Amino acid sequence: MTPSSPSPTLRVDCLARRHDVTAPASRVIPEETPIAFTYGGSTHAVMMATPADLEDFAIGFALTEGLIDAPEDAGEVEIVLSDAGIELRAWLRGGRQEAYAERRRSMAGPTGCGLCGIESLEAATRRLPTLDNALTVRAEALIEAMERLPTAQKYNQETRAIHAAGFWNPATGALIVREDVGRHNALDKLAGALTRQAIAATQGVVLMTSRVSVELVQKAARMGAPIIAAVSAPTALAVRNAQGCGMTLIAVMRGRDFEIFTHPGRILEQVSAHVA
Amino acid sequence: MTPSSPSPTLRVDCLARRHDVTAPASRVIPEETPIAFTYGGSTHAVMMATPADLEDFAIGFALTEGLIDAPEDAGEVEIVLSDAGIELRAWLRGGRQEAYAERRRSMAGPTGCGLCGIESLEAATRRLPTLDNALTVRAEALIEAMERLPTAQKYNQETRAIHAAGFWNPATGALIVREDVGRHNALDKLAGALTRQAIAATQGVVLMTSRVSVELVQKAARMGAPIIAAVSAPTALAVRNAQGCGMTLIAVMRGRDFEIFTHPGRILEQVSAHVA
Repeated sequence: MTPSSPSPTLRVDCLARRHDVTAPASRVIPEETPIAFTYGGSTHAVMMATPADLEDFAIGFALTEGLIDAPEDAGEVEIVLSDAGIELRAWLRGGRQEAYAERRRSMAGPTGCGLCGIESLEAATRRLPTLDNALTVRAEALIEAMERLPTAQKYNQETRAIHAAGFWNPATGALIVREDVGRHNALDKLAGALTRQAIAATQGVVLMTSRVSVELVQKAARMGAPIIAAVSAPTALAVRNAQGCGMTLIAVMRGRDFEIFTHPGRILEQVSAHVA
Repeated sequence: MTPSSPSPTLRVDCLARRHDVTAPASRVIPEETPIAFTYGGSTHAVMMATPADLEDFAIGFALTEGLIDAPEDAGEVEIVLSDAGIELRAWLRGGRQEAYAERRRSMAGPTGCGLCGIESLEAATRRLPTLDNALTVRAEALIEAMERLPTAQKYNQETRAIHAAGFWNPATGALIVREDVGRHNALDKLAGALTRQAIAATQGVVLMTSRVSVELVQKAARMGAPIIAAVSAPTALAVRNAQGCGMTLIAVMRGRDFEIFTHPGRILEQVSAHVA
């Protein structure tokens, strides 16, 4: 029997305790599937992720990991279903496969490959591009964009348990959203969606429903996004990385309030129109 | 200059927008540090984690990864600080180092080590022990334990951005809590804290402030904990794993309400004392 692609969400039975009474009920919850990324037949990583937007995920992950620079470098992505999970199988092109094989040989990556501790820590510290982009955004418009984000979170509307990464273009108002149980997966899917649609991340803002870990700043920097704005708090390492690479980091966005941690010059306040 | 151990939290400057006015402010945020686990000189994994309770983390991670069965199998853990992060250096004992080296040779793990996609997916699917433990817990007592959890989250009280894993013993009322920006790291630290204090996880309940991913069920099962209870929702894969290994999975705990997804027999309701 050929395995079928799992649904991103599903309804399961449970016993719900409400007002001190326990009774049969049900809840829609997110699926979580092991997803292997393979390039030229060997596995780069296995992620636990929501099985949706898999082509975006494959391309976006390869981009934010620095394996490719454009979607055509990865060619067609084959989605291989098995009982154990999903393999996203790509064959890198234009010298990328050879570069990848060389990278595997010379620096097997920070995980489980025989490097000593200090080497592994240094391999985990990514060098980020500098974001010297002069994009500016009105505070009021940013607040409105973040308020629109939940309306585009279709899986989260069903489950209230799935993160989203959005890309908002302040010039056009366009908002593109991808969702996943893992915030880093949601951002990888967004990176893939943008590049597959030939949308430059340099022209807008990455919106996150989560906290801001350093990994999100690293991925957004690789995408070229000059501004990241999130519902919850950043880590100190995320703030240092954003400071270092020139990214504007906005967090703790709640209603009309937010906090700017780095490079505030990109956020414009309207001159208030109070009459004295 | 010798690097010093980073503080688990720190206060940073920001610009805070409140009531449409932006002004200088500050916020206490969690630190996030690359932490490498090395056994016998080679790196097993690098995690981004909160730099606190590092001995617990080293022992707990080795336990939940199945590298050791008891803290003495890992001997003394050396904490090596560098500019790039922290190395937790252990030398496995009693044949464990040889078994680990053999495991690295025969199955290099799911990440980045040349396995094909299907092999990697199967390697990521852990076989879990069966939890046939007859522990029972009163619903009322469980609610009270979850209500106590925030009072023990010292770093979260400062930041409101750090997860906690707690272990509650319903017989004694004892509650042990460990914190981390990553929920899986918090549970690894808890696993290490319990085993270093010779506390059997079979006798109590794992409490989580987060959602329940499959990884948390796998770690709790390796700890031998028969019940996991969490503030937010589970994934479908977490529910299937809990069902399969005999774990009681309780989630969406809000105030006095919660939902039981698997093996509800361990949760006892008091007979209500209504007079007809």
